Amino acid sequence: MGARDVNEIGVGMLGYAFMGKAHSNGFRKLEYMTWPPPLRPRLVAIAGRNEAAVSEAATRYGFERWTTDWHDLVSDPAIGLLDNLGPNALHAEPTIAAAEAGKHVVCEKPLGRNADESYEIWRRVAATGVKHLCAFNYRFVPAVRLARELIDAGELGEIRHFRGRYLQDWGDSDADVWRFDRGAAGSGALGDLAAHVVDLARYLVGDIDEVGGFVQTFIPNREVDDAVESTVVFANGAVGTLEATRLALGRRNAFQWEINGTNGSLAFDMERLNELQVFRSGDERTRGFTTVLVSEASHPFWEHWWPPGHIVGWGDTFVHELHHFLAAIADDTDVAPHGATFEDGYRAAEVCDAILRSSESGRREKITYKGL
Amino acid sequence: MGARDVNEIGVGMLGYAFMGKAHSNGFRKLEYMTWPPPLRPRLVAIAGRNEAAVSEAATRYGFERWTTDWHDLVSDPAIGLLDNLGPNALHAEPTIAAAEAGKHVVCEKPLGRNADESYEIWRRVAATGVKHLCAFNYRFVPAVRLARELIDAGELGEIRHFRGRYLQDWGDSDADVWRFDRGAAGSGALGDLAAHVVDLARYLVGDIDEVGGFVQTFIPNREVDDAVESTVVFANGAVGTLEATRLALGRRNAFQWEINGTNGSLAFDMERLNELQVFRSGDERTRGFTTVLVSEASHPFWEHWWPPGHIVGWGDTFVHELHHFLAAIADDTDVAPHGATFEDGYRAAEVCDAILRSSESGRREKITYKGL
Amino acid sequence: MGARDVNEIGVGMLGYAFMGKAHSNGFRKLEYMTWPPPLRPRLVAIAGRNEAAVSEAATRYGFERWTTDWHDLVSDPAIGLLDNLGPNALHAEPTIAAAEAGKHVVCEKPLGRNADESYEIWRRVAATGVKHLCAFNYRFVPAVRLARELIDAGELGEIRHFRGRYLQDWGDSDADVWRFDRGAAGSGALGDLAAHVVDLARYLVGDIDEVGGFVQTFIPNREVDDAVESTVVFANGAVGTLEATRLALGRRNAFQWEINGTNGSLAFDMERLNELQVFRSGDERTRGFTTVLVSEASHPFWEHWWPPGHIVGWGDTFVHELHHFLAAIADDTDVAPHGATFEDGYRAAEVCDAILRSSESGRREKITYKGL
Amino acid sequence: MGARDVNEIGVGMLGYAFMGKAHSNGFRKLEYMTWPPPLRPRLVAIAGRNEAAVSEAATRYGFERWTTDWHDLVSDPAIGLLDNLGPNALHAEPTIAAAEAGKHVVCEKPLGRNADESYEIWRRVAATGVKHLCAFNYRFVPAVRLARELIDAGELGEIRHFRGRYLQDWGDSDADVWRFDRGAAGSGALGDLAAHVVDLARYLVGDIDEVGGFVQTFIPNREVDDAVESTVVFANGAVGTLEATRLALGRRNAFQWEINGTNGSLAFDMERLNELQVFRSGDERTRGFTTVLVSEASHPFWEHWWPPGHIVGWGDTFVHELHHFLAAIADDTDVAPHGATFEDGYRAAEVCDAILRSSESGRREKITYKGL
Repeated sequence: MGARDVNEIGVGMLGYAFMGKAHSNGFRKLEYMTWPPPLRPRLVAIAGRNEAAVSEAATRYGFERWTTDWHDLVSDPAIGLLDNLGPNALHAEPTIAAAEAGKHVVCEKPLGRNADESYEIWRRVAATGVKHLCAFNYRFVPAVRLARELIDAGELGEIRHFRGRYLQDWGDSDADVWRFDRGAAGSGALGDLAAHVVDLARYLVGDIDEVGGFVQTFIPNREVDDAVESTVVFANGAVGTLEATRLALGRRNAFQWEINGTNGSLAFDMERLNELQVFRSGDERTRGFTTVLVSEASHPFWEHWWPPGHIVGWGDTFVHELHHFLAAIADDTDVAPHGATFEDGYRAAEVCDAILRSSESGRREKITYKGL
Repeated sequence: MGARDVNEIGVGMLGYAFMGKAHSNGFRKLEYMTWPPPLRPRLVAIAGRNEAAVSEAATRYGFERWTTDWHDLVSDPAIGLLDNLGPNALHAEPTIAAAEAGKHVVCEKPLGRNADESYEIWRRVAATGVKHLCAFNYRFVPAVRLARELIDAGELGEIRHFRGRYLQDWGDSDADVWRFDRGAAGSGALGDLAAHVVDLARYLVGDIDEVGGFVQTFIPNREVDDAVESTVVFANGAVGTLEATRLALGRRNAFQWEINGTNGSLAFDMERLNELQVFRSGDERTRGFTTVLVSEASHPFWEHWWPPGHIVGWGDTFVHELHHFLAAIADDTDVAPHGATFEDGYRAAEVCDAILRSSESGRREKITYKGL
Repeated sequence: MGARDVNEIGVGMLGYAFMGKAHSNGFRKLEYMTWPPPLRPRLVAIAGRNEAAVSEAATRYGFERWTTDWHDLVSDPAIGLLDNLGPNALHAEPTIAAAEAGKHVVCEKPLGRNADESYEIWRRVAATGVKHLCAFNYRFVPAVRLARELIDAGELGEIRHFRGRYLQDWGDSDADVWRFDRGAAGSGALGDLAAHVVDLARYLVGDIDEVGGFVQTFIPNREVDDAVESTVVFANGAVGTLEATRLALGRRNAFQWEINGTNGSLAFDMERLNELQVFRSGDERTRGFTTVLVSEASHPFWEHWWPPGHIVGWGDTFVHELHHFLAAIADDTDVAPHGATFEDGYRAAEVCDAILRSSESGRREKITYKGL
Repeated sequence: MGARDVNEIGVGMLGYAFMGKAHSNGFRKLEYMTWPPPLRPRLVAIAGRNEAAVSEAATRYGFERWTTDWHDLVSDPAIGLLDNLGPNALHAEPTIAAAEAGKHVVCEKPLGRNADESYEIWRRVAATGVKHLCAFNYRFVPAVRLARELIDAGELGEIRHFRGRYLQDWGDSDADVWRFDRGAAGSGALGDLAAHVVDLARYLVGDIDEVGGFVQTFIPNREVDDAVESTVVFANGAVGTLEATRLALGRRNAFQWEINGTNGSLAFDMERLNELQVFRSGDERTRGFTTVLVSEASHPFWEHWWPPGHIVGWGDTFVHELHHFLAAIADDTDVAPHGATFEDGYRAAEVCDAILRSSESGRREKITYKGL
């Protein structure tokens, strides 16, 4: 090669903290790690309310300009993609505005603070025809994608059980304050953690018909829930549990799930995100759970990386996710099924809302999903 | 020493299959392994319906005689302890009869086929004044006892979460046929597996106030449930999930639980029953889950065994359990709190019944417990 | 059945401490656990120097009589099998005497305190025609036997590597004092732990041609070695390392080994003795080390035990070992290859001696083995 | 902030394949991930023999220019740092030339193809006064640095044992051909893998006094060794083993080591590089190996990354390593002790050479190190 001919896409980013760092790294790293990239991200502008912080973020991550008013991103003709990483309360308006201005949109999860808001975001954005991605990045863990491929290939047979729990343990602290503010966050562990469990449950097993459970707040004066406990019934007849908590001491980022089918089982823990546990029926004498180190040339996403056994990190899931979204834009292909669309964001919100309804009603709650 | 002066107790056993083997081994092994034993078990008679099988069992395990009529055990003056290992439908009558004949009684779990039957067994037996033990043997796993001791010592602080699941995978087979017969077993995974989860939840965390969930049968024409999914609320405010299934491929005997408190966490898996995972707050730089190999001189039950690191097996839990019961008889001490009494058997049944009610009503169900 | 017709064999035991307990339990338990047993062990007499202790042991384990003079065992016509569990210095004379009196003999490892003494024991005992077993009990761990079967079936292809280490951590204490006495023990970690590594290396990979390494004593004034470090070359061309230490803090009984062949690998840790790690070439996407819980009906020794997943303990290896020896006596079959004969005991001693020679010479040492 | 005032350093890179990708990613990522970076790397030029490949690499990683003649890098005044990632045979000349041209130098390991060549590189480069780093990147794994800090703080007491093995399994393939060419590589598993073990042994335990072992080639017609087996004695009296192989099926990148001291132990596996296993003496009832997930704010390097539990990847070790080197240049501080200097590269080579000498002589070999 010599010169190359990959098109650029201008990126506007709303938010500069934890997720801003993660997505900026994703855009910068995919440019050379996924080669050739589908589009070359040009970091045009970043928006945030704290001027000192957002200007430093712009310098740090290489954005050409910064602003304290997100409307500037929407009106910027150099921007072709808005990546909305703001607090949950700031998901709807900028995302819809950007889409209506013709920009492709990425929005952090949860899509809205409830199903109605999520539905509205989906409906308005879908009407514009732009590409949309709800940033459930855990679909882009190599082991998770491998799980999906094994399931799609029928290697598990019919699925009977899903057990998912997202356990963290920082809930006794006062850190990350907007996440404890009901107005900004909508909910606590529910939207923050359980939404991830719901999304992977849907991605791996299928749509959810019914939940029964409750949210619980342990910390005095906290506005949002600390924990979620629920049973779940899937449309395909599988049953199981969904849990999330910020109060499981010793579990730092333990998004764990297990799936049992008629021919095999899978198990996973995000704290060992390079590994998938695989059980398949077969010779009784040598069967058991196999620890698959998901880092082979034939494994998902691994064409971009290192020789086998040289593991990737959590931050690299964003490289995969944003690469997928840029490819969908470049080639005008569907974001689904591997990327979560705003419809997926909405459907996850319906499940979370149903858990809240169940928490109040004391009843298992059926879930109905709206279409466009 | 030369001669010794340990009293004998005559044992009558009802049942000779899986549990008959386990309990016979327990009695024979405790005689020399727990030294000196509180009482020396004399294996007087064993009862079962299949004459060929029960007579062979008598020879094999060293019972002096055998019978096909359990009433013979009740009327036998040489028997001071009836160990009832029959199918669930045969728990009530022989157990009550033996107690009313003045014999101490051990009864396999679940105590009865439902809470009413369990209550009746407890009430009638308690009235006689004999010692009674419901054979929830997993209380006698060294790691489980250590967990209890750590909790009692306040090392976990206040408990917030219990997540318990008992996963097996033989449910597609037709083996062990009485366990699939509603009349004989009462229920499937519920009484067989979930009852163990409920008992350890109660032993480690405390009484259960509320459950919400359901039982599920996957196998066509099966009379009993294959799986149980439930949320749980404890009297002390802890919340979590209770699960059991016979259809989790690759999980052969995976009774797994995790407890999170305000100061630490514990985790366990019966397939590695010699290990307890312990997390305690402390120096951030070196904390994490510690794999405690529960085999030190200072660990529960270890005075009876080997040097550290020389692990015990599943069968050895019965040595501990029966030793505990014989000591309670010899010294006239309480079976509780470490042994499960018939009251514990009854209380576990109330929880199981509440899950069934919830399964039918679709509502979370509060639990009330009767006293004597 | 009713009456049975299994022949008895009278057992005389020399030693009553750790190994006395382990072997007594083995004899008593095999009588009903391996059904029908090949011979019924009758515990005739036990010998030891401490009269109070040996008499209590007799009572505890059910020996008919006790003595402080081991010659009484040799002259006792009721005894058909001498089980010599004494200190290493007391292996040769009683074992040879018993064999020459026509008794089958079990002798604890290491067989002698060096290769010459071991050879002499083997030579003299072999000449009598009795059955002999050197009690390398780890051959009778189900996972070890499964490993052997997989290797025998060619599932690993040609073996290239063996890495074995036996790590314990009680060497800073003063416990178990005869093990630190050069006269009584011969050596330290070498004969106590490294000998086990050598025996399993031989059992699983084959004979050893060459070693190069050294023994090391860390504790001031200690007469015996605390640690052994060695490279190893097998007759079949495989290479690797042999290690043993009593000073690996946190490793309580960690006899760990790994074998790599041209088609697969195996790994094992005695602290999780029910598990075998198995890797085999195959589909790149789902391969990895499989944790086989060695407890299936088709697994070695499992016909005697419980349903799958209900694990056995360290003490149960003696049930398997003594059962195997009694079967060899009853059926007049070979103790080898699965049982270690005195020839195996001698060959292990040659390897240990070669490590000592290498330690002094600074050279890798070839090993030659004598025949009868 | 707004404008920033971090100085640039021009980087010239020799090599564009596996390590070229790893180091390019390191330079690009540290610019925003370690904030503010000590120097901003400007990717000036990249050299390689294959014109099509090196020109594509330049485009991909963002180098301003490319060349097929490494002398161009040495003569380029815009380059302040030469990063030499070429085959081992191409380490000496360009590295020395660049240093003599006043450029700071990074050189991949092994530094030279033997101790003499390594010494010469060190001597000539040290004479110039530039900063030099031998790219033993595994010192920059957070868990490895934490291990070093714990050891430095005396938490392990005196070290008695080091057991290190680097196990890979691609040796049956024909991939990566220069690594099998004696002229280009010098050695096989020895320089490629065992050198890493030697370096971490030195970093964590201290200098090595003696080795005894051998190299082994299994594959017919292969010019270099496939495996290394050795015992080791450290200057401080610790003893253990060093192993490396490319033929351990199922071990993809398993650089495993364990250290035992008088107060505690550490264990590590590169396939789970975010975890350190820590054992420390203490309460017998709750001690054991603790799995420390090395991702806390107080852990090494973690100031640059994510919230706890969000793990990093293998590639991120280069971010840490190159950041360290740039900081040493920017602040004129020592590369040692945490970075490996060329002296460390030379000393590792002396150990590897001694293993080769031992392989041929059959004797344990003492090691003497030259100074400047």
